[in-house]
Amino acid sequence: MLETKLVSQLKKIIGKEGVLTAKEDLNAYSYDGTTTWAHMPDVVVLPTTTEQVSQVLKLANENKIPVTPRGAGTNVSGGSIPIKGGIVLCTTKLNKILDINKTNLTATVEPGVVLQNLNMALAKQSLFYPPDPQSFLGCTMGGTVAENAGGPYCVKYGVTKQYLLGLEVVLANGYIMKLGGVTVKNRTGYELVMLFTGSEGTLGVITKITVRLLPMPPASKTMMAVFDDMAVGGQAVSDIMASGVVPAKVEFVDNFVIRRIEEMTPMGLPVEANALLLLQADGSSAAVEADSEQIIDILKKSGAKEVKVAKDANEAAMYWKMRSGGFAAVFGAAHTVMAEDVAVPRDKLAEFIHKLGEISKKSGFFIQFLGHAGDGNLHPSIFTDMRNEEEFARAQKTMAEIFRAAMELGGVLSGEHGIGLEKQRFLKEAMDPVAIDIMRKIKGIVDPNNILNPGKIWEEEGV
Amino acid sequence: MLETKLVSQLKKIIGKEGVLTAKEDLNAYSYDGTTTWAHMPDVVVLPTTTEQVSQVLKLANENKIPVTPRGAGTNVSGGSIPIKGGIVLCTTKLNKILDINKTNLTATVEPGVVLQNLNMALAKQSLFYPPDPQSFLGCTMGGTVAENAGGPYCVKYGVTKQYLLGLEVVLANGYIMKLGGVTVKNRTGYELVMLFTGSEGTLGVITKITVRLLPMPPASKTMMAVFDDMAVGGQAVSDIMASGVVPAKVEFVDNFVIRRIEEMTPMGLPVEANALLLLQADGSSAAVEADSEQIIDILKKSGAKEVKVAKDANEAAMYWKMRSGGFAAVFGAAHTVMAEDVAVPRDKLAEFIHKLGEISKKSGFFIQFLGHAGDGNLHPSIFTDMRNEEEFARAQKTMAEIFRAAMELGGVLSGEHGIGLEKQRFLKEAMDPVAIDIMRKIKGIVDPNNILNPGKIWEEEGV
Repeated sequence: MLETKLVSQLKKIIGKEGVLTAKEDLNAYSYDGTTTWAHMPDVVVLPTTTEQVSQVLKLANENKIPVTPRGAGTNVSGGSIPIKGGIVLCTTKLNKILDINKTNLTATVEPGVVLQNLNMALAKQSLFYPPDPQSFLGCTMGGTVAENAGGPYCVKYGVTKQYLLGLEVVLANGYIMKLGGVTVKNRTGYELVMLFTGSEGTLGVITKITVRLLPMPPASKTMMAVFDDMAVGGQAVSDIMASGVVPAKVEFVDNFVIRRIEEMTPMGLPVEANALLLLQADGSSAAVEADSEQIIDILKKSGAKEVKVAKDANEAAMYWKMRSGGFAAVFGAAHTVMAEDVAVPRDKLAEFIHKLGEISKKSGFFIQFLGHAGDGNLHPSIFTDMRNEEEFARAQKTMAEIFRAAMELGGVLSGEHGIGLEKQRFLKEAMDPVAIDIMRKIKGIVDPNNILNPGKIWEEEGV
Repeated sequence: MLETKLVSQLKKIIGKEGVLTAKEDLNAYSYDGTTTWAHMPDVVVLPTTTEQVSQVLKLANENKIPVTPRGAGTNVSGGSIPIKGGIVLCTTKLNKILDINKTNLTATVEPGVVLQNLNMALAKQSLFYPPDPQSFLGCTMGGTVAENAGGPYCVKYGVTKQYLLGLEVVLANGYIMKLGGVTVKNRTGYELVMLFTGSEGTLGVITKITVRLLPMPPASKTMMAVFDDMAVGGQAVSDIMASGVVPAKVEFVDNFVIRRIEEMTPMGLPVEANALLLLQADGSSAAVEADSEQIIDILKKSGAKEVKVAKDANEAAMYWKMRSGGFAAVFGAAHTVMAEDVAVPRDKLAEFIHKLGEISKKSGFFIQFLGHAGDGNLHPSIFTDMRNEEEFARAQKTMAEIFRAAMELGGVLSGEHGIGLEKQRFLKEAMDPVAIDIMRKIKGIVDPNNILNPGKIWEEEGV
């Protein structure tokens, strides 16, 4: 527990209503979207200004109290869990859209702005911010930067880091630092904006974000392809990527999700299909027509049993709702769902899907999966129960085999969820040891007392 | 001069033919594309393998000898000038294209591969790597990464950093480090690939580069718009950017360049025009038709006197040759051409062009400019003669006024050329002092003896 004196000082900085200490309040900030980890904070603060963030960090730094920055807590690698206790600094009240500039094609927001709220404000001006983690209804912009979030649109439009132009960041000692700016080209010094992007709250607290925008594509078309064989679906994705067409989205859903969704919200999905691909083409109407014709042609040649085209915006929205509900459908399926996130080269998708089948057979665990197939980014899930120690240990071992299978194919430990707590014990297999040491030392430069989100990404030595 | 013993050791590592010590050879590596700086190296090495790079750096590090990495030397901020002498490590013999993967949409190359050679190899497979610094005919891929290069295509497609997936980097102590990979999504640890990108050779020597590719756009159309007033041309660019259409290129050329090009290579350019905009739409044929129609309509409404459409690929190529020859045309115009590189928000283009006019009038210097208007990135040049100390000092002062005018409008000190030697004395005005300190300390982590491209980006304290 924090000393009463410190809590009083926090209340002086933020005001009473922005400091939570009741056990039932703290409990709500003890976990995030990751099912296998939780830890109680000592206190939660909800600052409303950058200056307050600065003063909280200064106080914490002087007293060497851990501070875990957090947005909406939709993180799925444990990054926002206060594993060392201390302060949870929640940014949800820093939630103003500060500027939308249609000519410069930029927006500046506070970190607590919910991604969907930004998108709605942009849509009114026919503007578009592509990175779309499937938690978009709740996740905050600060979290998307800290995690360098991706989603379905990234196959055509790239991930969060490809849209960041400027950040305001508060360092551990309270210093408010401005990085980058509002221009799309900027070659002033090292790419420090990129250093804070994806740093999972370990280097600073992000308090302002400037992103570049695109005009809203005037037209789009959604297609659904049905496959009897999952690996054939994977190969179809490779065929599309090699064909020269660039779909806006290429998503993969397996039979488990199809059935679960159909149970929860009946929408006439083909419940016998072993896999569905959901695809979108976007751009000018003419480009959409040309692209979707080409995509449908390839899907059929690649072995799709059926290709349906959403007849209107409502049907398209229904398909995408299915996809965005996929994780929720999976999470309800067992006491403990180990939902993971790997990526493989796009020419290795079918091979990886075969490999998942073998691992499933060998381990006896059913492996469910869905994901952003157009990026080679899949989310395999294992259903288990962490209260059963023996089974949970076997499930963890099986998940490790999945990571290793992805890496053996030239893939990566995390495609878009980050390392957090969930994957830190695998980091040494996935990253050069000297690179890990460089990360540690960079953290030492900006956070010498190791107060910011301690215990994340890499394993601590000698603990 | 280096000791004879060290030169012998370098010859043992690389072979005699890869070590240059003759004065006339060294002279060729004493300057780059920047006209106001030069310094002789003690020795030039041309390694052919990563292992050789590693051994050279190990030797240099043990003996605390400066090493300036260099590609084709097309740098225009002095970044590849060996300002402290020592070794120039030239990567031009590390010039193999290692892999082009059409399904994964990636290429892996050595740093000495010339950008144009990569583009030609990709074109054979209908693939496309967008970043296009106007030195593309000679510049090397390693240089484009070290400088995070941009060019005309970046208005639609983004800069080099938006295409980098993986790097192999040799650190100052000779350690060969692999960062990132070949997947388009990768959330494994901090963005260290991005840290080395744009670090101007100060953090490591890049020995392998994996980039993501796009399918070659099937069609394109080039347009040229003629303006009587430069600021009206600038406003037209803002109008296009706000309209929802995304041109592939939007370039600005002033009357000076028009006349010089027409003198050098007559192509029927409108020599009386005060400004030209060169624009390109690309994508599917249908999208190109729709986009170019919209662009032409806006250009006319925004005050273009005339809009010409290139009738075929040859005429389009001629227009773009004019643009890529723009800098060459400018460089021949005076003994000393201070060719600069600033960027302003895209809604401030007309205001910045007005401001340049005022600075020109006040200073008495003619200010020539061209640039990537669609990104707000302009290259103003002042013609002077550095042998005339008084005039050169006034020219430098005038250039400083241009930088400050851009920054006052929310712009940046460098849009795409980097800081190098040319702009380091302005860095403190353009970057947070704590951020500069963080850069210094990061360099201290990976290069404690400060051997890699010393004396660049920031000013050394107490020197």
